[in-house]
Amino acid sequence: MSTDTHDPAPFPESVAVLALGLLGGSVLKAISKRFPKSRRIGWARSSAVREIALDQAIANVVVDRPEDAVAQAEVVVVASPVNTIAELARDSFDANPNAIFTDVGSTKKRIVTEVERHPGLSQRFVAAHPIAGSEKGGIEFADADLFQDRTVVVTPSGRETAGHVEKVEAFWMGLGAQVVRTSPTEHDRLLALTSHLPHLLAALASRQVDAAALAFVGTGWRDTTRVAAGNADLWASIVSENREYVLQALDGAIGDLQRLADRVRGGDDAAVRDWLDEGRDRRLQSDGESRA
Amino acid sequence: MSTDTHDPAPFPESVAVLALGLLGGSVLKAISKRFPKSRRIGWARSSAVREIALDQAIANVVVDRPEDAVAQAEVVVVASPVNTIAELARDSFDANPNAIFTDVGSTKKRIVTEVERHPGLSQRFVAAHPIAGSEKGGIEFADADLFQDRTVVVTPSGRETAGHVEKVEAFWMGLGAQVVRTSPTEHDRLLALTSHLPHLLAALASRQVDAAALAFVGTGWRDTTRVAAGNADLWASIVSENREYVLQALDGAIGDLQRLADRVRGGDDAAVRDWLDEGRDRRLQSDGESRA
Repeated sequence: MSTDTHDPAPFPESVAVLALGLLGGSVLKAISKRFPKSRRIGWARSSAVREIALDQAIANVVVDRPEDAVAQAEVVVVASPVNTIAELARDSFDANPNAIFTDVGSTKKRIVTEVERHPGLSQRFVAAHPIAGSEKGGIEFADADLFQDRTVVVTPSGRETAGHVEKVEAFWMGLGAQVVRTSPTEHDRLLALTSHLPHLLAALASRQVDAAALAFVGTGWRDTTRVAAGNADLWASIVSENREYVLQALDGAIGDLQRLADRVRGGDDAAVRDWLDEGRDRRLQSDGESRA
Repeated sequence: MSTDTHDPAPFPESVAVLALGLLGGSVLKAISKRFPKSRRIGWARSSAVREIALDQAIANVVVDRPEDAVAQAEVVVVASPVNTIAELARDSFDANPNAIFTDVGSTKKRIVTEVERHPGLSQRFVAAHPIAGSEKGGIEFADADLFQDRTVVVTPSGRETAGHVEKVEAFWMGLGAQVVRTSPTEHDRLLALTSHLPHLLAALASRQVDAAALAFVGTGWRDTTRVAAGNADLWASIVSENREYVLQALDGAIGDLQRLADRVRGGDDAAVRDWLDEGRDRRLQSDGESRA
């Protein structure tokens, strides 16, 4: 009767982060704060970003090539834009047969499908999505507490070597997050509703306000549209990667908005109130249930 | 050559507030903080609310009937739900031929039209809308600084006695607000885009998330949907009062969302990015221009 499986795994002695934006930088800062003895290796395409990472001691060492980071690391976090994650992992995993990979991509199905085409990688790649971020991108906004009490969704493919999923879950929990496990497909379906659609609706609300109207916006509009300030390239990639479920969500939202318009047009105030009330109930319910 | 017209008018010696919710309570608290010598008279339908107003010294005196408040006041602020403002002013203005009225209604055209049916009132009623509030209603959330640096839109009908519009503008500026003057119709057209539609889109985003998905919401969804927690009755009234422009805004939004869906369906990532970018530009522009 061994108790090994219940011992908390020690935090990895070395972690490489590929791409040092808000999320990658925050992973390194969180490790620095919580596990200062763990070696932090950073790679970024931009030499200016690598320099910031080194100068500010966000990383212990930075390297010019992804594979040089992978070669030194027990765990590799791929933190590049969602449409380049699978490619970056594929091009670097051969550098170290023991490294376990995870990522931060906002969509999961396409990444996992791509990774599955490389059996040597798919055994060691545990896909993850920290539901944490900001409309402000870049290493300059990196935050050691970004993952504190946030949810990280882990989406195993089923091809991982035994124990690897648990190791990656322990890694994210080590950074302060709570882990939820689900399938890549279910992740993408749910996140289309909880993240991708709200982003599109925030941009929609922003787009309807012309220059003359800007003087009349209040905190309501400001909150509703805040995420619309996020990087448009990144979000276009997310929409592209999760096209099917985003379209389902969009079509559902258009139909629901059309139902509301019909009630407004018909002057059915009670029906308008009921429509609003259902949105209100869901919002209030989230205060009790959400972990994010 | 008189300089009288440039002298700042002294703050009213007595102000009555009819209805003591978040906005009415905040008006009294702001006066208490900034002009403690001014007499604050409160009326609320609920005796429990009147008691709070008195116990917490939000008002100096509370009365059982609106006309008893009006009788004692230089300026009357009608702070009831938008669909009862004109009625409350109409039923109480005879109690004091000298009182100047203003209000806090989120829509203006219907209120001004109603008021115009009573010439004795319309000469003394200067419609206003403080773009300030919260999803949390009730006197318990009243805040002395609610109007600080916020915009109050004043929408004259053109029937006001000379000088009254300026007096009401000075009143709101006295509470810390910046005043913008426009027509009731233009106000309603613009607020449909900057406030009413965003509220409906926030409720829409909230409605799409079912119980299973609630565990996956993050700060993006939370911000985007925050206002959806607001009182559904109040918002149904606002939609009803501003039906024409809300419908225009809804139809515009549905068309714009349909355009986005077509781009997503067609796999045109660059066109999706452009759509997002326009929303982003508008949002970033607001940081420079908005006063709210």
